Amino acid sequence: MKNILLTIEYDGTYFYGWQRQPGLATGQGKIEEALEKLLGQKVEINGTSRTDAGVHALCQKASFKADFGIPVENMKRALNDILSSGETYRGKASAIRITDVREVPDDFHARFNCLGKKYMYIIDQKAEPEIFQRNYAYQLGETLDVSKMRQALKYIEGTHDFESFQAQGGTPRETTVRTIYGAKIYDEGDKLVFEVKGDGFLYNMVRIMVGTLIQVGRGKIAPQDVEKILESKDRQNAGPTAPAEGLYLAEIYFTQEELWKE
Amino acid sequence: MKNILLTIEYDGTYFYGWQRQPGLATGQGKIEEALEKLLGQKVEINGTSRTDAGVHALCQKASFKADFGIPVENMKRALNDILSSGETYRGKASAIRITDVREVPDDFHARFNCLGKKYMYIIDQKAEPEIFQRNYAYQLGETLDVSKMRQALKYIEGTHDFESFQAQGGTPRETTVRTIYGAKIYDEGDKLVFEVKGDGFLYNMVRIMVGTLIQVGRGKIAPQDVEKILESKDRQNAGPTAPAEGLYLAEIYFTQEELWKE
Repeated sequence: MKNILLTIEYDGTYFYGWQRQPGLATGQGKIEEALEKLLGQKVEINGTSRTDAGVHALCQKASFKADFGIPVENMKRALNDILSSGETYRGKASAIRITDVREVPDDFHARFNCLGKKYMYIIDQKAEPEIFQRNYAYQLGETLDVSKMRQALKYIEGTHDFESFQAQGGTPRETTVRTIYGAKIYDEGDKLVFEVKGDGFLYNMVRIMVGTLIQVGRGKIAPQDVEKILESKDRQNAGPTAPAEGLYLAEIYFTQEELWKE
Repeated sequence: MKNILLTIEYDGTYFYGWQRQPGLATGQGKIEEALEKLLGQKVEINGTSRTDAGVHALCQKASFKADFGIPVENMKRALNDILSSGETYRGKASAIRITDVREVPDDFHARFNCLGKKYMYIIDQKAEPEIFQRNYAYQLGETLDVSKMRQALKYIEGTHDFESFQAQGGTPRETTVRTIYGAKIYDEGDKLVFEVKGDGFLYNMVRIMVGTLIQVGRGKIAPQDVEKILESKDRQNAGPTAPAEGLYLAEIYFTQEELWKE
């Protein structure tokens, strides 16, 4: 029995999220179909993160156990060939791709062994929408006060109860306390990129953070009020949920070393 | 009666080309629907170029005549509002956008007054496909010999019979002689960008040029053989038709001044 860890990137535009759903294109569904074709057996993969429809992944991780003969070093190419041929969208390259396949110790599990994740969110401030970017960045069309947004980050960093930043409808959690190891905002031309690294994220937490930071950048919420929003534990006090298309699952950390190296 | 010239950009991924087709999303179709909503009358627009499914436009032009009261300076915003609300693709921004609306002299016609066009084609040489670019650049995945490709450009430039570079199925033309005013290839990271400016282009001419230049860049066709391919007037001798997703209609020229300014 081999235990295999996959690293996967996908364009969330074309998927109804990560989690398998009957009759719908999902990240997990596409990978499991490809594995069944390759290995001649049904396998269930454990993804680290459930991403919503429209959310992208630069680095999703998923593990599975199976007995099979094909050498692990050949699997990446074989799976990508299957994924490409399966994509019928006007014959273009696949919207999902395996970037790494490796064997891991028997007790490894992509979800349980995850120590932290990094998400990235891209806001496009350009006044006129960029049509070629419309699925890959939130076309806000307004210029934000970045220095105010950066001031607000210090209230997000650290260990807090993030109940105010949790949407209805996610998997029930034992606690809404999470630790944010770091958060930053940088410019790329007209775009603002928000990066946040934490030990875990509640349902829609990053998108609600972004919606709140946008209100800060507009001057509608004062930076220091983010602390009060957290303390209130009331979703109503945070900003709106920013749309899915700006969000990228950027990194998954399985070791303390990886988690702290940046 | 006003004569109006529209400038339009669109992501060709979401359209079955420019030309109106019943029941299919096309560039012309979407713009005509928006105009009908705005002006309360059916209008037929004359686009300068018919682009195929998957081909993008940075600068499509289309003109139409109609009697209406709405001020021309308000039309761009009003049309874009309609185009955005009409796009139901998971609520994201529209895949088509008006970038300019202006009144033109009564005898102006977007197709007949066109003196030349510029197309751009993007080839991605990166070994691993870039999934977020797969609809916006040809994911070739090979490194080409650009200096050989550049040598071949001199045989393309000038006035030639381009019958070898014409696909079946286009509008019948009186002549297959065209003048290429300029062609160049430049690098942008892993990408090669081919730009070609001419007085007109036959059906799939740019994509067959690119397919031929790729064969030159692979060393399968010698640069000087491009001259022989032209002389043969035989499509079989040219390279394959490069895929639609790399192609952009980049400029339309209505005056000699614009045509020669770069």
